[in-house]
Amino acid sequence: MSRMFVPGPVDVDDEVLQAQAQPMIPHRSKEFEEIFRRVSEKAQQLFFTRYRVLLSASSGTGFQEAAVRNLVNKKVLSCVNGAFADRWYDVAVSNGKKAQKLAFEWDEPVDPGRVAAAVKAGGFEALTIVHNETSTGMQNPVKEVASAVRAVAPDTLILVDAVSSLSGAKIEMDAWGLDMVLTSSQKAIALPPGLALAAVSDRALEKAKTVENRGWYFDLLLMEKHRLKDSSPATPAMSLIFALDRQLDRILAEGLEKRFARHSAMAKRVQEWADAHDLSMYAPEGYRSQTVTTVKNERNIDLSDLNTFLKQRGMRIANGYGPLKNITFRIAHMGEIQMGDVDTLLEAMEEYLQK
Amino acid sequence: MSRMFVPGPVDVDDEVLQAQAQPMIPHRSKEFEEIFRRVSEKAQQLFFTRYRVLLSASSGTGFQEAAVRNLVNKKVLSCVNGAFADRWYDVAVSNGKKAQKLAFEWDEPVDPGRVAAAVKAGGFEALTIVHNETSTGMQNPVKEVASAVRAVAPDTLILVDAVSSLSGAKIEMDAWGLDMVLTSSQKAIALPPGLALAAVSDRALEKAKTVENRGWYFDLLLMEKHRLKDSSPATPAMSLIFALDRQLDRILAEGLEKRFARHSAMAKRVQEWADAHDLSMYAPEGYRSQTVTTVKNERNIDLSDLNTFLKQRGMRIANGYGPLKNITFRIAHMGEIQMGDVDTLLEAMEEYLQK
Repeated sequence: MSRMFVPGPVDVDDEVLQAQAQPMIPHRSKEFEEIFRRVSEKAQQLFFTRYRVLLSASSGTGFQEAAVRNLVNKKVLSCVNGAFADRWYDVAVSNGKKAQKLAFEWDEPVDPGRVAAAVKAGGFEALTIVHNETSTGMQNPVKEVASAVRAVAPDTLILVDAVSSLSGAKIEMDAWGLDMVLTSSQKAIALPPGLALAAVSDRALEKAKTVENRGWYFDLLLMEKHRLKDSSPATPAMSLIFALDRQLDRILAEGLEKRFARHSAMAKRVQEWADAHDLSMYAPEGYRSQTVTTVKNERNIDLSDLNTFLKQRGMRIANGYGPLKNITFRIAHMGEIQMGDVDTLLEAMEEYLQK
Repeated sequence: MSRMFVPGPVDVDDEVLQAQAQPMIPHRSKEFEEIFRRVSEKAQQLFFTRYRVLLSASSGTGFQEAAVRNLVNKKVLSCVNGAFADRWYDVAVSNGKKAQKLAFEWDEPVDPGRVAAAVKAGGFEALTIVHNETSTGMQNPVKEVASAVRAVAPDTLILVDAVSSLSGAKIEMDAWGLDMVLTSSQKAIALPPGLALAAVSDRALEKAKTVENRGWYFDLLLMEKHRLKDSSPATPAMSLIFALDRQLDRILAEGLEKRFARHSAMAKRVQEWADAHDLSMYAPEGYRSQTVTTVKNERNIDLSDLNTFLKQRGMRIANGYGPLKNITFRIAHMGEIQMGDVDTLLEAMEEYLQK
């Protein structure tokens, strides 16, 4: 099988691809409700939560919109050190919220102290933070940020985008005190795109009751009302839910701790390879993603040419994102990627560099 | 193959189900952009439009939300004679719009004269109307409504939900002067759910530029900006787009006029069967859906028992919707259903009634 070392949409296991091709059944039937229920229950384990997991026929950005539309009347603090955190800020502004950007350099992690100071000063109803920046390979210290915020403003809701890390890195929603954690199907969970998942705390749902103009499609209270009947307000993305049902079994059969360790070991291997080839990482030590490694292109590799070379061997990596194009490249190691695949990739890159 | 005579999610052809199972490729690649472009272009034929067709990773309700959020600053007239028209009204209200409901009995078509009078009196920026009410089997006279409205208020945008009819009944967007026509994948188009399509006129997009608080996920201007690059703002529902690509080829190979005629003939057959069995139709003559027939349960058939009987023969029909449960039943004849399937169903129902 050829491998894509790109940060999503990632390669999907054949059996999971096939699970999409099951015949349709009515979505308001006992048969489908049973699938909906067991998928939501299994998904709770990925979030380490006792709270409900909601499913949406949308990309992860849909739940970014749901988060700000449902949980913020006016003021939200947007922690931004990458492209997807910045998108969440844009989402908040375009939904009429007073979003205040707390900006960091893209190669700096979000700093818990600065966040706590901003929250203390600001009277924010919620803050948004991206756990794993797909654009930079930065893993932000969400646990520490949550802890610092709780100490100064315990009512501030903590909303976390874990689009490219959930199920690849351990995120303990309840233990860390998070209020909404969202992810999408086509990254570390390794499904095709079109499905988003979000775990939502009780106090977040209580807050939603006080927020006007939540809309319909992403109304968390409406989703919760239907979830209690093992259903969804609008027709769900059934083929993706069939696939999720199968994939959750595969993920849980691997074991979450083993899965996290696999991702972490692959990240380490890529980092060591880069070090050995005089290439440094974009994110600082201690804050490097377990699912995607961003390497500074300090040897001025022609990335387009490198990818042409790799594609002849059935592989591809990703160029840097937006302003980081050509000056960085990204090697994703999430979902179905195994250490053997990473070794094969790195050997091919070695060969390319020695040409 | 067993057949579901239910108004969506409907049976999907095996080849189309399988098209979903293609391996993933990066969505921002020439390869996927080519698929995105050709799908949008082929889809224009279904809408009889020269305007763009946008794709959304959502159910059809997502585009109901997009319509009111993008094309209405304040006042919208909601024509309501069924459950899904009523949902669109709810969607408008929950998005903070001043929606005024123009209500008809559920067994009455939307009346062009009353709509024109309401529009003339009201100063509405847009009106919403459902072409084919899945809940009642009513086909509303959208062409006549549009014409009547143009005569009295030419600037009022005409927004049409064609969720359960597009590609099963002829809707000529440009010739009728419609501004947005939306549909979803799991009805007459016969794909799995999770994808929505909408054709949007130039003047609708011009109007959107004047509307505040359009949000991000369903921002039509953002979608259009990306469409011009054969892409979408957020990650698209790729496996469903692979399937749509295949299904559009199948639909166009059948030929649109032949496809409409097939649906129309199946509707007529079901109507004649009902007539012959002393069962009358819920919708009046001249306004009956080509894709789903709602029959009054005047013989007090135990519908649950009937479906148990039918399921033993690999078929099922749908009960009445909401308040029409048990007092009506629905036989859908859309998507892959052929006249031979309808005959098989009606023979089995005949057998059941003679028991």
